[in-house]
Amino acid sequence: MKARRLSKAIQIGSVTVGGDSPIVVQSMTKTDTCDVMSTINQIKELKEHGCELVRVAVPDAEAARAIKEIKRGVALPIIADIHFDYRLALMALDSGADGLRLNPGNISQPDKVAVIAHAARERNVPIRIGVNAGSLPKPEKPKQTIAQQMVAAALKQVHWLESLDFDLIKVSLKAFDVPTTVEAYQSIARKMPYPLHIGITEAGTPRTGIIRSAVGIGTLLHQGIGDTIRVSLTAHPREEVIAAYEILKSLNLRQHGPVLVSCPSCGRAEVDIVKLAEAVEKELIKISKPIKVAVMGCVVNGPGEAKDADIGIACGKGKGILFKKGKKIGVIEERDFVTALMREVGRF
Amino acid sequence: MKARRLSKAIQIGSVTVGGDSPIVVQSMTKTDTCDVMSTINQIKELKEHGCELVRVAVPDAEAARAIKEIKRGVALPIIADIHFDYRLALMALDSGADGLRLNPGNISQPDKVAVIAHAARERNVPIRIGVNAGSLPKPEKPKQTIAQQMVAAALKQVHWLESLDFDLIKVSLKAFDVPTTVEAYQSIARKMPYPLHIGITEAGTPRTGIIRSAVGIGTLLHQGIGDTIRVSLTAHPREEVIAAYEILKSLNLRQHGPVLVSCPSCGRAEVDIVKLAEAVEKELIKISKPIKVAVMGCVVNGPGEAKDADIGIACGKGKGILFKKGKKIGVIEERDFVTALMREVGRF
Repeated sequence: MKARRLSKAIQIGSVTVGGDSPIVVQSMTKTDTCDVMSTINQIKELKEHGCELVRVAVPDAEAARAIKEIKRGVALPIIADIHFDYRLALMALDSGADGLRLNPGNISQPDKVAVIAHAARERNVPIRIGVNAGSLPKPEKPKQTIAQQMVAAALKQVHWLESLDFDLIKVSLKAFDVPTTVEAYQSIARKMPYPLHIGITEAGTPRTGIIRSAVGIGTLLHQGIGDTIRVSLTAHPREEVIAAYEILKSLNLRQHGPVLVSCPSCGRAEVDIVKLAEAVEKELIKISKPIKVAVMGCVVNGPGEAKDADIGIACGKGKGILFKKGKKIGVIEERDFVTALMREVGRF
Repeated sequence: MKARRLSKAIQIGSVTVGGDSPIVVQSMTKTDTCDVMSTINQIKELKEHGCELVRVAVPDAEAARAIKEIKRGVALPIIADIHFDYRLALMALDSGADGLRLNPGNISQPDKVAVIAHAARERNVPIRIGVNAGSLPKPEKPKQTIAQQMVAAALKQVHWLESLDFDLIKVSLKAFDVPTTVEAYQSIARKMPYPLHIGITEAGTPRTGIIRSAVGIGTLLHQGIGDTIRVSLTAHPREEVIAAYEILKSLNLRQHGPVLVSCPSCGRAEVDIVKLAEAVEKELIKISKPIKVAVMGCVVNGPGEAKDADIGIACGKGKGILFKKGKKIGVIEERDFVTALMREVGRF
């Protein structure tokens, strides 16, 4: 795994993005931003799941004004998602937004960007240049690939902002196509020092979107690219946060609750491993401590994996061997598998 | 995305693995192998979902013999999963197994491996050297990392087989830890010419195992590594096959049924995109043709993504614009969104 690309850290409210700070998990509300109570409640729920930054859509002046009230009700820094109208960015700043997202595909006049940058700098508010393959500005050079167009669109605004002496910058380059997205991020990662917000756009429903996001975001993170991630799913945003942490956990980049190692089961298993693992997972979801638990079905990898976990069980016919930090601590009857395992998890 | 590593193709029954053949999707039955009828039924179901190779556990002589009957009932090539006892490999070959998987962690005597290789060569049956972090042989050198131990264990058996003039070889190096797994495959990919079976072992239940597998397998595939994939999930094996195809589709490595692009929705959306996308997904699951369908919620990326799809809809308040191959073909009332979209999908 490559060492993390060192980016210039920025501060979004209380949260640091980039540098050597942990990779930040973010999401976006799906409520009507003007419905302040629903938006606050959704943000609170996201925070409970570990969300660290939240973006809200700002389609109009009323939404921009609502940010003021939303901020009174929540602890998470709020990023205003701005498209088309630069005045909405100014209003969102007036309402206390901790970050702005601008899309170069629909706010592209240098004078408008300059007005926003001036107001953002006064308040020390960072701007994300959020490029999206679905809303690219017209390419300036012929024969550019989509990835090249995305990088060019972002760098153009980066350079504008730099020329205005504004460097509280974050960049994203999202496409639905994973190889395109990875290529774009790899390219821009070498060309500028700012932190990267990574994600796959319009990735779809959880059934397929989680996989597409895990492949794209995971590939980038493994290459050391990415300072904050957002998993885009056509679903409640809590699913985005849960998936984001699982991606980060799979690469040992963040800890967040338990990790369950469980064998897929096969014709060798003498207990119903699927049922057992589901029962253990149901219990583990209630727990927040980072603990590695293994549920294994046979003698092939069972003892090895169970020993490697904090708490593990290697199951045979009617009985299972319980391990704690690699040490055998008991032989358990099948009816006690879940309770014995969870008792040890509780004690850990 | 890196060009695919060129490996020496092998033939497992009717299926080619390696070389420039498509990346093969495989799974493993979770039935008792001796329960021939259940095993046949599970293999048939896996085939319906696109599974191309299937492995069965061979814990004992009865299971090895059952392969003969199983093969009479199914069209997919069958790989016998052998541990501990080399004689089971010989019996599985006698039963007509199309492939063998041996674990160097528990069959490690050169004479035993030689007997198996001799019998396999007579039948032109390939052997997978299936190394697993949970069942590694004792390291020969001190201070080796897990990845290094995995590679060393595999190469030792590769060299034994080569010294016996046996080259129908496939290798896997699976760990639960994604960085370890990726490191092991990257290392061995440079050291031998044989095809690689890739996967993350004991990845867990679908909730977390799909993400861990997508990150690990996706990262390797993006680097051009991997000739056949198995997603290990503590679940019905059909879930493994479905997830495997989604990983491959996300990197444009295989086509397999429709692809649904859908926006995550946000405070900007004026229709219930989650509900709409779920309804469209439910219909698309019934369809096998590879078609890209987009369901988008607003004017930011909606028209762009909808135009990029084969059939797309960009929804506004009460109405949506329908696109076919980038051309606007109509304006649809909200109540007709699903039927209009699916009518065009049907015609495509």
